[in-house]
Amino acid sequence: MKFGVLGTGTVGRTIGARLAVLGHDVRIGTRDVATTLASTEPNQITQETFADWHVKNAGVGLGTFAEAAEHGELVVNAVMGAHSLDALRAADEANLDGKVLIDIPNPLDFSGGMPPTLFVSNTDSLGEQIQREFPRVKVVKTLNTMTAFVMADPSLVDDGDHTVFLCGNDEGAKAQVIEILRSFGWRDVIDLGDITSARGTESYLPLWLRLWGALQVPMFNIKVVR
Amino acid sequence: MKFGVLGTGTVGRTIGARLAVLGHDVRIGTRDVATTLASTEPNQITQETFADWHVKNAGVGLGTFAEAAEHGELVVNAVMGAHSLDALRAADEANLDGKVLIDIPNPLDFSGGMPPTLFVSNTDSLGEQIQREFPRVKVVKTLNTMTAFVMADPSLVDDGDHTVFLCGNDEGAKAQVIEILRSFGWRDVIDLGDITSARGTESYLPLWLRLWGALQVPMFNIKVVR
Repeated sequence: MKFGVLGTGTVGRTIGARLAVLGHDVRIGTRDVATTLASTEPNQITQETFADWHVKNAGVGLGTFAEAAEHGELVVNAVMGAHSLDALRAADEANLDGKVLIDIPNPLDFSGGMPPTLFVSNTDSLGEQIQREFPRVKVVKTLNTMTAFVMADPSLVDDGDHTVFLCGNDEGAKAQVIEILRSFGWRDVIDLGDITSARGTESYLPLWLRLWGALQVPMFNIKVVR
Repeated sequence: MKFGVLGTGTVGRTIGARLAVLGHDVRIGTRDVATTLASTEPNQITQETFADWHVKNAGVGLGTFAEAAEHGELVVNAVMGAHSLDALRAADEANLDGKVLIDIPNPLDFSGGMPPTLFVSNTDSLGEQIQREFPRVKVVKTLNTMTAFVMADPSLVDDGDHTVFLCGNDEGAKAQVIEILRSFGWRDVIDLGDITSARGTESYLPLWLRLWGALQVPMFNIKVVR
């Protein structure tokens, strides 16, 4: 299947590489291709520049946000929360129209230091903001409650015995995303309902951040025990 | 040990009864004793009036908020979030001074219908509000991330194989609360840090509420898998 992945950070790289390994035709999108390839800034987690990563993942195509979105039958938003709406505008509504958008980022505001706060919360969510601005896109919020490596390969923590959530207004889109999640190794997928449920999963982030602080490693997740 | 439990709702009754069964000397506190005993309103979950509950739990003393707080070497706040500060004021700072306060409620705002939103969140929490107003009380926020029956007896869900969090500024107070949690049956207790971490656990409530909607029963909890 053809995927467009918006964002060249940890999440975009990890999801893009995972989709490619699973046999999909992936194009990763960035604001400016030349700038991204020329950047000498190492990734905070992997310490790899994007160019180094791209050499190792040559099977993943690269293009602008618009080119990646156009390429994808299904599009993944892996741009950080504060820049997500701008990136989607740059991707161009025409390239997203009618498509499923897997929306991963959280509305984190780092302006006040660590831990970040949320720039939208409680009575609204980033997932809903995106759905409102792009009403013909089938937004499915998911994978926003764990670190990137666990998103793409849940078996990295306790053999995958934990939970991922999804929210969205379109039942067909959610069914399609559940299949992709299962191909990543997710066994416990809980559908929380329509896109307003993104308030729930995005609101979990402050707890996730405190857990990261307490456990000192990001390689954990929650399992809903019932 | 002597406990004062503020609040005669589901949480107050359940925690009060559990502490009494464990051999503690418990006094439960309410705004007005006569009104509480005369109330014919059944509890939403147990369908029991307070008077009926009290006949079955005659070992639990009853008094005003101030009398319950005075009685307790350790005090439990089980008053709903919106009324917590008022109840603590009625309990009287002199009766709380220097004591450990187990703070359970969440800042739920039901004024906009279901699911409720939070009346304080993101950059502050109810736990912090209480700690600020009562600086000499050792506030320990805990047990606010599951339904009352599971708080008091975690073995009711998957034999207790799941997680409870606690937050607070006083290490000695947290150590004491951890012992009480263990006596309830909690095995996985995660200390998230100081009272600002209550932002994390209170922010989880929107996800808890969506999970309750999706699972259709409140008898669940999360396990932090690492």
